[in-house]
Amino acid sequence: MADQKPLSAKYIAEHRSPQDCWIVVDNQVWDVTDFLDEHPGGSTIILKYAGRDATKAYSEVHAPSVLKNNLSADKLKGMLDESTIDEDWIKPPPGQNPKVLLDNEKPPLGTLINSHDFEVVASKTANSKTWAFYSSAATDLITRDANKSCFDRIWFRPRVLRNVREVNGRTKILGGDYKLPLFVSPAAMAKLIHSDGECAIARACENKGIMQGISNNSSYTMDELRTAAPSAGFFFQLYVNRDREKSAALLRQCSANPNIKAIFVTVDAAWPGKREADERVKADEGLSVPMSPSKAQNDKKGGGLGRVMAGFIDPGLTWEDLKWVRQHTHKPVCLKGVMSADDAMLAMKAGLDGILLSNHGGRNLDTSPPSIITLLEIHRRCPEVFEKMEVYVDSGIRRGTDILKAVCLGATAVGMGRSMLFATNYGQEGVEHLIDIMQDELETAMRNIGITSLDQASPDFVHTGDIDHLVPASRSHPYARAIAKGRGAKL
Amino acid sequence: MADQKPLSAKYIAEHRSPQDCWIVVDNQVWDVTDFLDEHPGGSTIILKYAGRDATKAYSEVHAPSVLKNNLSADKLKGMLDESTIDEDWIKPPPGQNPKVLLDNEKPPLGTLINSHDFEVVASKTANSKTWAFYSSAATDLITRDANKSCFDRIWFRPRVLRNVREVNGRTKILGGDYKLPLFVSPAAMAKLIHSDGECAIARACENKGIMQGISNNSSYTMDELRTAAPSAGFFFQLYVNRDREKSAALLRQCSANPNIKAIFVTVDAAWPGKREADERVKADEGLSVPMSPSKAQNDKKGGGLGRVMAGFIDPGLTWEDLKWVRQHTHKPVCLKGVMSADDAMLAMKAGLDGILLSNHGGRNLDTSPPSIITLLEIHRRCPEVFEKMEVYVDSGIRRGTDILKAVCLGATAVGMGRSMLFATNYGQEGVEHLIDIMQDELETAMRNIGITSLDQASPDFVHTGDIDHLVPASRSHPYARAIAKGRGAKL
Amino acid sequence: MADQKPLSAKYIAEHRSPQDCWIVVDNQVWDVTDFLDEHPGGSTIILKYAGRDATKAYSEVHAPSVLKNNLSADKLKGMLDESTIDEDWIKPPPGQNPKVLLDNEKPPLGTLINSHDFEVVASKTANSKTWAFYSSAATDLITRDANKSCFDRIWFRPRVLRNVREVNGRTKILGGDYKLPLFVSPAAMAKLIHSDGECAIARACENKGIMQGISNNSSYTMDELRTAAPSAGFFFQLYVNRDREKSAALLRQCSANPNIKAIFVTVDAAWPGKREADERVKADEGLSVPMSPSKAQNDKKGGGLGRVMAGFIDPGLTWEDLKWVRQHTHKPVCLKGVMSADDAMLAMKAGLDGILLSNHGGRNLDTSPPSIITLLEIHRRCPEVFEKMEVYVDSGIRRGTDILKAVCLGATAVGMGRSMLFATNYGQEGVEHLIDIMQDELETAMRNIGITSLDQASPDFVHTGDIDHLVPASRSHPYARAIAKGRGAKL
Amino acid sequence: MADQKPLSAKYIAEHRSPQDCWIVVDNQVWDVTDFLDEHPGGSTIILKYAGRDATKAYSEVHAPSVLKNNLSADKLKGMLDESTIDEDWIKPPPGQNPKVLLDNEKPPLGTLINSHDFEVVASKTANSKTWAFYSSAATDLITRDANKSCFDRIWFRPRVLRNVREVNGRTKILGGDYKLPLFVSPAAMAKLIHSDGECAIARACENKGIMQGISNNSSYTMDELRTAAPSAGFFFQLYVNRDREKSAALLRQCSANPNIKAIFVTVDAAWPGKREADERVKADEGLSVPMSPSKAQNDKKGGGLGRVMAGFIDPGLTWEDLKWVRQHTHKPVCLKGVMSADDAMLAMKAGLDGILLSNHGGRNLDTSPPSIITLLEIHRRCPEVFEKMEVYVDSGIRRGTDILKAVCLGATAVGMGRSMLFATNYGQEGVEHLIDIMQDELETAMRNIGITSLDQASPDFVHTGDIDHLVPASRSHPYARAIAKGRGAKL
Repeated sequence: MADQKPLSAKYIAEHRSPQDCWIVVDNQVWDVTDFLDEHPGGSTIILKYAGRDATKAYSEVHAPSVLKNNLSADKLKGMLDESTIDEDWIKPPPGQNPKVLLDNEKPPLGTLINSHDFEVVASKTANSKTWAFYSSAATDLITRDANKSCFDRIWFRPRVLRNVREVNGRTKILGGDYKLPLFVSPAAMAKLIHSDGECAIARACENKGIMQGISNNSSYTMDELRTAAPSAGFFFQLYVNRDREKSAALLRQCSANPNIKAIFVTVDAAWPGKREADERVKADEGLSVPMSPSKAQNDKKGGGLGRVMAGFIDPGLTWEDLKWVRQHTHKPVCLKGVMSADDAMLAMKAGLDGILLSNHGGRNLDTSPPSIITLLEIHRRCPEVFEKMEVYVDSGIRRGTDILKAVCLGATAVGMGRSMLFATNYGQEGVEHLIDIMQDELETAMRNIGITSLDQASPDFVHTGDIDHLVPASRSHPYARAIAKGRGAKL
Repeated sequence: MADQKPLSAKYIAEHRSPQDCWIVVDNQVWDVTDFLDEHPGGSTIILKYAGRDATKAYSEVHAPSVLKNNLSADKLKGMLDESTIDEDWIKPPPGQNPKVLLDNEKPPLGTLINSHDFEVVASKTANSKTWAFYSSAATDLITRDANKSCFDRIWFRPRVLRNVREVNGRTKILGGDYKLPLFVSPAAMAKLIHSDGECAIARACENKGIMQGISNNSSYTMDELRTAAPSAGFFFQLYVNRDREKSAALLRQCSANPNIKAIFVTVDAAWPGKREADERVKADEGLSVPMSPSKAQNDKKGGGLGRVMAGFIDPGLTWEDLKWVRQHTHKPVCLKGVMSADDAMLAMKAGLDGILLSNHGGRNLDTSPPSIITLLEIHRRCPEVFEKMEVYVDSGIRRGTDILKAVCLGATAVGMGRSMLFATNYGQEGVEHLIDIMQDELETAMRNIGITSLDQASPDFVHTGDIDHLVPASRSHPYARAIAKGRGAKL
Repeated sequence: MADQKPLSAKYIAEHRSPQDCWIVVDNQVWDVTDFLDEHPGGSTIILKYAGRDATKAYSEVHAPSVLKNNLSADKLKGMLDESTIDEDWIKPPPGQNPKVLLDNEKPPLGTLINSHDFEVVASKTANSKTWAFYSSAATDLITRDANKSCFDRIWFRPRVLRNVREVNGRTKILGGDYKLPLFVSPAAMAKLIHSDGECAIARACENKGIMQGISNNSSYTMDELRTAAPSAGFFFQLYVNRDREKSAALLRQCSANPNIKAIFVTVDAAWPGKREADERVKADEGLSVPMSPSKAQNDKKGGGLGRVMAGFIDPGLTWEDLKWVRQHTHKPVCLKGVMSADDAMLAMKAGLDGILLSNHGGRNLDTSPPSIITLLEIHRRCPEVFEKMEVYVDSGIRRGTDILKAVCLGATAVGMGRSMLFATNYGQEGVEHLIDIMQDELETAMRNIGITSLDQASPDFVHTGDIDHLVPASRSHPYARAIAKGRGAKL
Repeated sequence: MADQKPLSAKYIAEHRSPQDCWIVVDNQVWDVTDFLDEHPGGSTIILKYAGRDATKAYSEVHAPSVLKNNLSADKLKGMLDESTIDEDWIKPPPGQNPKVLLDNEKPPLGTLINSHDFEVVASKTANSKTWAFYSSAATDLITRDANKSCFDRIWFRPRVLRNVREVNGRTKILGGDYKLPLFVSPAAMAKLIHSDGECAIARACENKGIMQGISNNSSYTMDELRTAAPSAGFFFQLYVNRDREKSAALLRQCSANPNIKAIFVTVDAAWPGKREADERVKADEGLSVPMSPSKAQNDKKGGGLGRVMAGFIDPGLTWEDLKWVRQHTHKPVCLKGVMSADDAMLAMKAGLDGILLSNHGGRNLDTSPPSIITLLEIHRRCPEVFEKMEVYVDSGIRRGTDILKAVCLGATAVGMGRSMLFATNYGQEGVEHLIDIMQDELETAMRNIGITSLDQASPDFVHTGDIDHLVPASRSHPYARAIAKGRGAKL
């Protein structure tokens, strides 16, 4: 026994977290921290008594000698000083013990320190359909995972001894000023994880000075979001409806809404992808969204929200239709979902204002190329694109270093979708916390490569040697002709 | 307790699946879904009482407090309203509870949504010998696994803004019209997994309009299959018998059978591979097949069905013998099992009608090249092959994206063997379901790369940079001569 | 219950293997095969009663309902027909139940079907020091593992339609005829795993017609081995003693022994490697070997047999000493342990008869190059070596395909060391069984790439594109000079 | 029962280690070695009775038959000879059983045989904050892990038959003589793991003849360390204070201290990295260090010692400031933390005496390049650096082979930081033991590549083909211009 002096109830009560957990049994004070994971009955039941008297609960299931036989002697920290017991200790009021979480409770927001934490918490606390819909991606998840791992395989080339006292990430996007080269990628149905849904995101973005993309399948309308965040800057992500007039109406709303800064026409979802985790969980058939005719439904393929909500989207959309879009709006028009240098060039020729390189978070076509690879393909094949239009990147951004790499390689700004949904789990405050984290990570990375503003970012600060072989150097394969000939087809 | 109102037996009974499992003990209703995996006695015993009263079974092994002590309070969903109990609830008739599966029961066909699902179900529900025979491959399984992973390492290069409203996968194979560029690769003894065996496959292929390869070791004869599916298109996979007359007789049967569209002479099984999982499980020595003298047998090497059934195959087969084949049939003759560009060229020179690039599913020679690598070798070394004959690919196809990649790279059609056997687990309906899945995946992939028919597929839609180093550029090694000289041999 | 008819004791007794295990409790016959792995008390105790009545043992620890509650109903196969019980069934004589193995019992030799099986069995049944000494390798085991994985990354380029009815692996080594291009690599102290030690190996090699390398640290002397296997062909692996006269004596013995066909001077063990698993297990200090002054010892570094047994070896050996070797023997002299093309060239210039590319099984210097990489380096830098001397390879050979790859790439023969020691676990019979397995695997591979004798093997049958970047193309680094200059040293 | 003769208490007592553990229950002697890992109550409780009578403890929790039912019969080694029991056996004095360790006890120093062992022991025995602070690194730990794995991917090219009887690692660093090309990298707060902290390290380095770097955040002052180790050679790692005068004072102290051989100005920590494991554990706010104004603190970002202790460091440091450093010291001045060939060239042009390639152990910017990659970049882009100044490397050194590779590639010496802190867990003796281990590993590696002194080390002894693609060949990207133009920025 390390300490022969009896221990006060108050002192014992300080040891009430999973990282430092004492319990009292028959007045003996035991440190059971290391035992939590081994307890056959799980740690939850023990943590309920962390820092307190567990004698009663313990006796119901265990023989007196079990603790002594299972713990080493040094885990016996001393005896309880019974004279120090008070009301509080015996019956802690609910909420007194905030660090003892059940598996499906959200930890305090302040304890989340990166975007992964938000994902982990969402995986445990969101309902299973929401988790399946948000986290799922197409078939074998290869693109989803490569989106991130390709960033991880890009190395920085940091410079030292540069004055980096003052640093900032200010960015101009389509003429507007934003605090960060980061926007919220449009994502459907944020209300599934929090009743404030996209409104929470809008308020957070307004406060933090970043742009938000509004999905055609947003839980709230453009007007509602503008009301929620009157000075925010949005772009609208359009899914062109088979019924063109419906889309025209939306475009007219956009034109009338001064907060909408641009239209992003979605082109990476010609057909809904097969998101198997989403299909396997039944959908609530009451679900719908206000700006599209989408309605959840379970059919013989499964319960895929992503699939059934996409039923109204026109797979017949072509470059010609962009002229029609221009007729219905005077705002900048960008493409969302370019996956090749060829289409980047076509977009440039079509006079568009920007392109968002995206594979829909890997949700639509598995083994479609990671966006950062497409960015490198543009470098290699048509760098002039960077001079003519803005290029954005999303899919796979999890760290400030990811943002900085994309910007170094020519992106004007990057988007985060899933992570922002996971942060919405905590409402507006959660999204603000995540934006703060990303800003802090970005500024730390900028300083540590030796730059203080983003106009200093350049490809010279990164090395892509580990992924260069994944980047196509041209479009036409040398043997394409023979195959075409064999088919008797004229390509 | 989330809901103080007593719960009706009917309502409780709705929570009877592994994904949502409530049980009643002493009138308390507990949600034990999360606990299923942790139950020391396994989940099966709990699932037997899913949605019902488990008091009796529970009391036999547990103290009353165990549930309370092991589950968090929020898992207590309420009390049972005893007035709502009826006969049905007390004694559910067999079959009432279809979602509660024992480990070795097949889940409903509709819940299987990809080819992997069929494999998982077969691994649990087929008998161990069948599983071993179907799933095994040569020695260290390197080729078997690379067959699939090489597909995964090919990236698409999707194009956007193309009208993909109407899409179809129609394919001409040796002059015949098929609905998909997919056929069933010939595989032995489908009867092991379902009494209808190849007949089930034949009916499914007929209904779905795809071609079926019939193995020389089929459980049913060509005539039986023709009877089963009178309008189906087959090809016959010939293993040339040491006793040539036996093979000649089969060839004559093929010639007389109008459903047989071609002969595929097997060349990738000069000698049976060492499939260790197959060897380790005893064979039922009663097994035999009608169109070959094969008979199962356990010998000192083990119980390898693949090996002993191959005993009649002539390892002395040469290019000369193909002339003999031509003498016994007027149907198109193809090779099944080409593994090098060199042999593709020889086949072209021999005037054959097609070649199926195959390594026998990795079953014969471990570290033989993945078929898709051989396809790329043909590109690089003799693209003229594509102009002169049809090229097919099997081994490793699991996804619609795999089919599309092979077709983009020049394949006329691809075959699936193992997956189709696993689908036969559910009879004809299972095979049809799998074909539907593959068609849906293929069409989704076509649309999302921006094509609507397969004559638009070309190498320009894929990037093979991650596997190009695995593709030989020529046959002769620069140092082969020195080694030969050292050996005093004339190569 | 699948079968209502009572089951006979004899029928029940057939189900007595881990793959098919029934037991009887209270006259009920249960199939507990699937339950074996889940039994909290382990499978061993159940297997003791496989096919028999376990009522008594069961009742001692379990309540009557446990079986019923833990197994699904279909596992109850029926009732025991008590009238069929006889003496044999009640009290099986020892040995009756050969397939029920304790963890540390050797399974029947016939159930081992590849070299990995021998390793697994040795890991469970050899004593811990023997296992540590045989299996250990230098520090982080990188070379040990790469030895094998580099073989796995070489792909075959199989040819088809070649007559492979008759195949054989006959090989000439230094003028002698052997049945296979495989020899037993010299390895120390085979007696640790079987009392017959190297004698068992010698007899097996004699019977199977392959060569055996005798280690200087062999448990038996050259004369003893010659007596054991009078017609065998050996080579002697010399560790040159700091006391040259001792080595001279051994060389004279070699000269006098007609079975010794060559001397292999060890050069890859200038200093004993740090084999940490070996160091961590105490050595039996009584251990010694007859042909060297080695004696086991535990010192402050640990119990490393590999290290302390090497104490007599002269780290001062140079190319000059090879002349001294030549003076003491008229037999062919080879080097064992060449790890670079440079030293291969020096060996060629020194007029040696052969070189064994080896890194001592990864036991001496971690991250020394895999032998197959050194073979490729010779190709690239000095292919003329193959014309002037024989080249052998060991380290990492586990499969017949590995042998064939090495021979295709120019090796005359390859050695297996560790695997042969693990086979010695079963004495002579074990080694013979392993040689049979290797021969069968080699011949299967030869047939399946389309060759019938080893003089047809050539680099054209393999593709090394996946490991070519690991092969040095020259010795001198472009920047070596600057570094040397900076050091003020003359290299 | 293997041995029917009763066993003496003394003999039984010899089997008291985790590798060989017998216990006595009811006078039966059982070998429970294999059972240790399976004991549901953990192995610790059993090991307390290793070699002794466990009857009492056993009976408290187990039925008599449990041992018999769970162990195979051969584990019963015999009966205890009660006549041999003596006082010692019944009540072993504390310390008698040194090999039976609780999980959080340090094993005897002699049983640690490599640097990994020290890390494992520290992970179990240091308090959680110390472990978090020492072991943590920036965000996703990619650089931390690549630091090591890049060394593992460099292959040796060993030469044989060279006289390596005498070998030594003597090295000149900035004109001083040291026994090894190894120094202790400066690391903060060694006192956290041992009260002697940096003093223990200093005495060990003095005894072993290697250099020690003293961190600005050392637990002891320069003067205290000089007192502890009067003949030691140190360098001082300076963090330049925002308040320049404080740093000037430290530089003056350095100048006056003859043991300080050089000043290493830290340049790889312009801004403190985000070490998440460190942030997640609360800091003891009483912590501070004598030579900087650093004080531990928990703030809203977490408890990151690394971050809050760095608050005083000036992120505005530039190349200009090095002149100011020179004004305050006449000692050699080096940079600590160069991560690019460009800055190596600038350092050379600035006339510095040396550069330490370092990424701060991966602690500051994740995906900053592994130091060994930077060394290779210098080779490729500016080998003249090696002629003009000394180049050191740290981050990722764990083995003697790592040291040798760095020296072959041009490093004068390498530093180990974390491992030395983990060794400090055992005080001076621990550090000495680790230095001995590193020396032994280095000399073994030198001998086995065929060199006897470090001036023979050259790039010719290594092959870097597996990591060459990670090495940048130039600074300017071909497409940097287009991106810059698009931004309208002047880079």
